[in-house]
Amino acid sequence: MPVARPHASHAGEQPLPTLEYVVLGIDPGTATTGYGVVGLTLAGEFQLLACGVIRTDAGMPMHLRLRELFEDLQRLIAEFRPQGVAVEKLFFGRNVTTAISVGQARGTVLLAAALAGLEVAEYTPAEVKQAIAGYGNAEKHQVQEMVQRLLDLDFIPKPDDAADGVAIGVCHLQSLIYHRRIADA
Amino acid sequence: MPVARPHASHAGEQPLPTLEYVVLGIDPGTATTGYGVVGLTLAGEFQLLACGVIRTDAGMPMHLRLRELFEDLQRLIAEFRPQGVAVEKLFFGRNVTTAISVGQARGTVLLAAALAGLEVAEYTPAEVKQAIAGYGNAEKHQVQEMVQRLLDLDFIPKPDDAADGVAIGVCHLQSLIYHRRIADA
Repeated sequence: MPVARPHASHAGEQPLPTLEYVVLGIDPGTATTGYGVVGLTLAGEFQLLACGVIRTDAGMPMHLRLRELFEDLQRLIAEFRPQGVAVEKLFFGRNVTTAISVGQARGTVLLAAALAGLEVAEYTPAEVKQAIAGYGNAEKHQVQEMVQRLLDLDFIPKPDDAADGVAIGVCHLQSLIYHRRIADA
Repeated sequence: MPVARPHASHAGEQPLPTLEYVVLGIDPGTATTGYGVVGLTLAGEFQLLACGVIRTDAGMPMHLRLRELFEDLQRLIAEFRPQGVAVEKLFFGRNVTTAISVGQARGTVLLAAALAGLEVAEYTPAEVKQAIAGYGNAEKHQVQEMVQRLLDLDFIPKPDDAADGVAIGVCHLQSLIYHRRIADA
């Protein structure tokens, strides 16, 4: 599993700002699961720590593909120690066979989070768009550009599944900040 | 998780016949997962070792329900040491939300099997009916009565989800015997 770490620094280079919260955002799928690891700094800024996709071999039996996905998720959790996992909520309107397949991958993600004792939050695509671009019907490229701005990146995460994972992670952090503001008010 | 052991014996009582193969048959669901542990004796007979249902609390968050299911499956695998897990294959025609939910439970079952290094086989409901009752459109009660006869039980496993788990397990053993016969011929 290749892990892109656009902002990760090594000892001796620029140290990471202290993070008060790290979220693993996941867009689950059997063939391709996109992920984004996003931190909230003490200064209240978002920081992309890693993003990428976990791909499993279509030629392998399903139970072995799910095991691969599970073990890759465990490695990400061990490396970045997120407090929360944010997962895209069920989609509608596609066919039942696809839904079962996505459900299997989604179950694997939820299980990896539960076994690690992490918080789990679920967001619909509309909620992600609303939280990032300000309205639930935003176009994909608008969401991606807002994510780029919010994370101060000089690139847009690729492929789309990775970008979706990052967006879900950012959505979770926005929601966290929002609920704190309400609690403080 | 209550485990019914209609045939299990304690030390000093009738010993279990030596089993050459044990299968864990599973009918997955989020609220209720039915299971049947069925052994194939050296004499070529089927033996029911345990059956029952794993229920998870509808009031709990999904990731915790899946963890409960996963841990109960791990306990069954540790207790009965099956060589194979047989799972009901995707169903069609229900709605997408149900399919995602069943997919999540199914993914949990496949993952538990894969992490334990077990064989995994999948059977459609028609295949289960065919293997047990001789035709793919058999009625539920016909399948249950055949399962009762094949396992020499003085009862029909209850509830239906448990009976389905047992039937899938028996289907797997029938398939195993069938393929051996072909290999021998």
